[in-house]
Amino acid sequence: MIDLKNKIEKLAANNNGLFAKDFLQTWDKSREDLEYILDLAQLLKDFRDNNISTKTFDSGLAVSIFRDQSTRTRFSFASAANLLGLEVQDMDESKSQIAHGETIRETANMISFLTDLIGIRDDMFLGEGHTYMKEVGEALDDGFENGVLPQRPGIVNLQCDRDHPTQSMADLLHLKNHFGSLENLKGKKIAMTWAYSPSYGKPLSVPQGIIGLMTRFGMNVSLAYPEGYNLIPELEQQAAGFAKLNNTNFEIVHSMEEAFTDADIVYPKSWAPFFVMQQRTELLKNKDTEGLKTLEKSCLAQNANFMNWECDEAKMKLTKNGEALYMHCLPADISGVSCKKGEVSESVFEKYRLTTYIEAGYKPYIIAAMMMANRFDDPGEILGKLFTEGKCRVMV
Amino acid sequence: MIDLKNKIEKLAANNNGLFAKDFLQTWDKSREDLEYILDLAQLLKDFRDNNISTKTFDSGLAVSIFRDQSTRTRFSFASAANLLGLEVQDMDESKSQIAHGETIRETANMISFLTDLIGIRDDMFLGEGHTYMKEVGEALDDGFENGVLPQRPGIVNLQCDRDHPTQSMADLLHLKNHFGSLENLKGKKIAMTWAYSPSYGKPLSVPQGIIGLMTRFGMNVSLAYPEGYNLIPELEQQAAGFAKLNNTNFEIVHSMEEAFTDADIVYPKSWAPFFVMQQRTELLKNKDTEGLKTLEKSCLAQNANFMNWECDEAKMKLTKNGEALYMHCLPADISGVSCKKGEVSESVFEKYRLTTYIEAGYKPYIIAAMMMANRFDDPGEILGKLFTEGKCRVMV
Amino acid sequence: MIDLKNKIEKLAANNNGLFAKDFLQTWDKSREDLEYILDLAQLLKDFRDNNISTKTFDSGLAVSIFRDQSTRTRFSFASAANLLGLEVQDMDESKSQIAHGETIRETANMISFLTDLIGIRDDMFLGEGHTYMKEVGEALDDGFENGVLPQRPGIVNLQCDRDHPTQSMADLLHLKNHFGSLENLKGKKIAMTWAYSPSYGKPLSVPQGIIGLMTRFGMNVSLAYPEGYNLIPELEQQAAGFAKLNNTNFEIVHSMEEAFTDADIVYPKSWAPFFVMQQRTELLKNKDTEGLKTLEKSCLAQNANFMNWECDEAKMKLTKNGEALYMHCLPADISGVSCKKGEVSESVFEKYRLTTYIEAGYKPYIIAAMMMANRFDDPGEILGKLFTEGKCRVMV
Repeated sequence: MIDLKNKIEKLAANNNGLFAKDFLQTWDKSREDLEYILDLAQLLKDFRDNNISTKTFDSGLAVSIFRDQSTRTRFSFASAANLLGLEVQDMDESKSQIAHGETIRETANMISFLTDLIGIRDDMFLGEGHTYMKEVGEALDDGFENGVLPQRPGIVNLQCDRDHPTQSMADLLHLKNHFGSLENLKGKKIAMTWAYSPSYGKPLSVPQGIIGLMTRFGMNVSLAYPEGYNLIPELEQQAAGFAKLNNTNFEIVHSMEEAFTDADIVYPKSWAPFFVMQQRTELLKNKDTEGLKTLEKSCLAQNANFMNWECDEAKMKLTKNGEALYMHCLPADISGVSCKKGEVSESVFEKYRLTTYIEAGYKPYIIAAMMMANRFDDPGEILGKLFTEGKCRVMV
Repeated sequence: MIDLKNKIEKLAANNNGLFAKDFLQTWDKSREDLEYILDLAQLLKDFRDNNISTKTFDSGLAVSIFRDQSTRTRFSFASAANLLGLEVQDMDESKSQIAHGETIRETANMISFLTDLIGIRDDMFLGEGHTYMKEVGEALDDGFENGVLPQRPGIVNLQCDRDHPTQSMADLLHLKNHFGSLENLKGKKIAMTWAYSPSYGKPLSVPQGIIGLMTRFGMNVSLAYPEGYNLIPELEQQAAGFAKLNNTNFEIVHSMEEAFTDADIVYPKSWAPFFVMQQRTELLKNKDTEGLKTLEKSCLAQNANFMNWECDEAKMKLTKNGEALYMHCLPADISGVSCKKGEVSESVFEKYRLTTYIEAGYKPYIIAAMMMANRFDDPGEILGKLFTEGKCRVMV
Repeated sequence: MIDLKNKIEKLAANNNGLFAKDFLQTWDKSREDLEYILDLAQLLKDFRDNNISTKTFDSGLAVSIFRDQSTRTRFSFASAANLLGLEVQDMDESKSQIAHGETIRETANMISFLTDLIGIRDDMFLGEGHTYMKEVGEALDDGFENGVLPQRPGIVNLQCDRDHPTQSMADLLHLKNHFGSLENLKGKKIAMTWAYSPSYGKPLSVPQGIIGLMTRFGMNVSLAYPEGYNLIPELEQQAAGFAKLNNTNFEIVHSMEEAFTDADIVYPKSWAPFFVMQQRTELLKNKDTEGLKTLEKSCLAQNANFMNWECDEAKMKLTKNGEALYMHCLPADISGVSCKKGEVSESVFEKYRLTTYIEAGYKPYIIAAMMMANRFDDPGEILGKLFTEGKCRVMV
């Protein structure tokens, strides 16, 4: 418990640069801001593990807007909100079209009168998700400045077409704890590689988020994919820039084996090529069902050329001491389990299954930290008060 | 804060005639009762604006029954319940038929064992919504009197076929604050007028609610619609009676321009003619899909004759100093924005956009006030205790 | 209130054998355990009736997994969770297939990071529901033991293919209160009989739950059904074994009249024959829509031979003094009300309508008691603290 007190004091001594600012992309934030989130998330986890209440809201809503189905992100968001005392209200937009202009302005205000935070997941359309979140943010600014809203709800990006910051930050906290410290991550090689999957259309935000974050924390990033399966070009270039700035390596290779060689960490995951996602967005916009079917067919046929991009025992042997840490955002396509042939072999996945669960377990705390940093000027001071009060989460 | 204390004392000095009584129609309530709701709603808003907790329930459910889709009313209800400490549980009846008799009696009891409040929206069928709410109320009476229920949950009408009291009361609170006091509303002219919309089947409850409420608060009401687009005749006559009783004017005219002339407030909004709603109810009951299509077609064709019933700059110039307050329950059909030609021109709407948002922002507090007045014999006393305790809504 | 204090002390003196153990079937529990639940449920009801808070959780989720539609069980679960301070999150699996293996392991962990309790309803497939719940439990054990989960959420069976313990225990508490004590139930005859219904495919868990529980509490159980409409054979034999062990009678007869004769309690309820449910499970697994239609048709034709299995005035006259207590888990198929010809005549149902509502009203408290016994080593001690604190549920 002395450790907990020290951690709180350390956090309270730091500056919270995230107050009243939406969390849309990790690259909009300073390294200090990101470390602040890691520390705060860990503290919130420590509080809960020690059965100390972190209820900072007596009432208030946390609205979730999911423009795509999701079980784990939904539960992570609900858990985070509940941990702080907010009640989740789901805003179902599944049947809606891509909304623009007045509809966004109005809806954003209508759901926000007594709302403290809004979590948005919108990863279906390239060029849309991030734009949508910014439009919601501007509508909220407008409403708050003009006296419509008594508070300006914060926005947390729960996955867009560009970044998936709650995932990449949970991954970073996992790496920090796994290797002992952020310092220890310096010089480590992470292989963010494409992997085969019998599905198509998987979003690019996870690999984009990983290369845009890990290059800033001293890791050498090897991005691997079959020719043509590139990410948003601008974000690949950004990662290269981050690497240069932080004296780390960033390379793009077209061989899973090459990326795996001597890697400390591997992150094999399927995604759709950028140019396919562009076509798909156009077809979806035009409701071209036939075109979508044709695209899916040609895309799956194309994928089938790369079925050997599977994370198996042989490839794992190429990694540092044959013992690289395997990561995945889940659910993984496991060969012989969830599909005939997929991203990872059954034996490799089974070896790392529990660590992928532990990895996922950080997400609720990362989201709660993003919420708290958005709402409180000095979360450290608030946690200090909660520690002193020492109210139990579960009665004893 | 002294102001807040005075307001609380003033409220506590008044008699709460709404205790343990369902809120179904404003015209079931006395003027004093309605003013009580306005004062209580404003106080709940003041408490929240001053970051003081209004959590009066430690646990308990607020059940919402929506027999129609709704985003803003759903969020208003959820916000109101949360503000008082109740958890919302949605009762999904979308797939159900119009329920009667034993089904209502049983369901009403089954959802109410630990329930404090029930909000119902049922505006689809003329002659059904209000009846349904009364049946639910009688089932709850029966359950409570016979020891089935440990409490008799209160019912709040979230829109029926006759009235939309949470809307009209939010509108009245908006008007009170906009013009400075209820006293100042005396002699003001409000134009409640039909407006063109490219849809059909919109409920009558908003205009009915407005004419049945504003005539009682000293306003002169001009109800305007094309010939044949009348509301429920009984409710038009009731408004005329209220006007007579309160020495105000109530007129029915068939020209938007006439209604707008010298108006202090305009409320242009589309609705379906009474006789169409009657036919529609019969067709829906009989599941006559063909008949519904035919009715819709003829109705839209009929509407098209009145496309000039649009609230535009020219008509706004006819109002008092060309500066009448524009009101709408949202979402409005905005010409060139949400449709080709609609209820209001883009420039007029844009000028008043933010005030319509502010208007909508009162609804959560009106609902919370209706809930609190139903549950507490003396809400003023309760608010006094909460003020003294001074627990923060958000930690500081 | 002295009575309440005595009850708390009595409970605290007893051993809680249910701590940290899932509640899947009443026959997995000792008689003492079941009595403990009855006492705890009654105390939770007493607390609420006396407006004393039973909020034992400051935050935390209660996850509901419904693999079948349900209004009353859903509300009972939500009410119970809310009573203890947990927020319900629904896990929608309606569109999912029967999940196995990795999917269950992963999902169980992903929804449990900040979850204290999980309620599962899975009664559609014979041989599946109970197995599924055990698999979820094993996945949670695995996650907890390996540091994935900070706590091992408890599981409450909200109805499976074998037992419906929240129903049967609510029924037992109803009987205890109706007849004055568990002692008074000794020697009473309960007729658990099949009844005609114009539907098919109703689960077997209610009759199985009743015969497996009441035989252990001194009641003589007469199970009646038309030839061929038997329950899971193993569970019929188990009930016979319980009866022998507890010196009560258990008989299977094929006449409603015979079962009703001299019965103190009658529980007439439709179910599908075991062999039909077996066929149905196979057909559902194989998605054999045609086969399902054929089965339904032949099954309904078969049922029609037993339309006289209706609980009517004439049969009620056969019961002890013609005044047996009528029970039903609701909703009942009432002749002339919810269907042409059903399980019970209108006049019999109307006479007992309110007592069936009262019966249903125990379920939220039974679920809350199962939750609390699972989470707290000594619920009596916790209730003692809550009683001393005396926080009001609703402000006064």
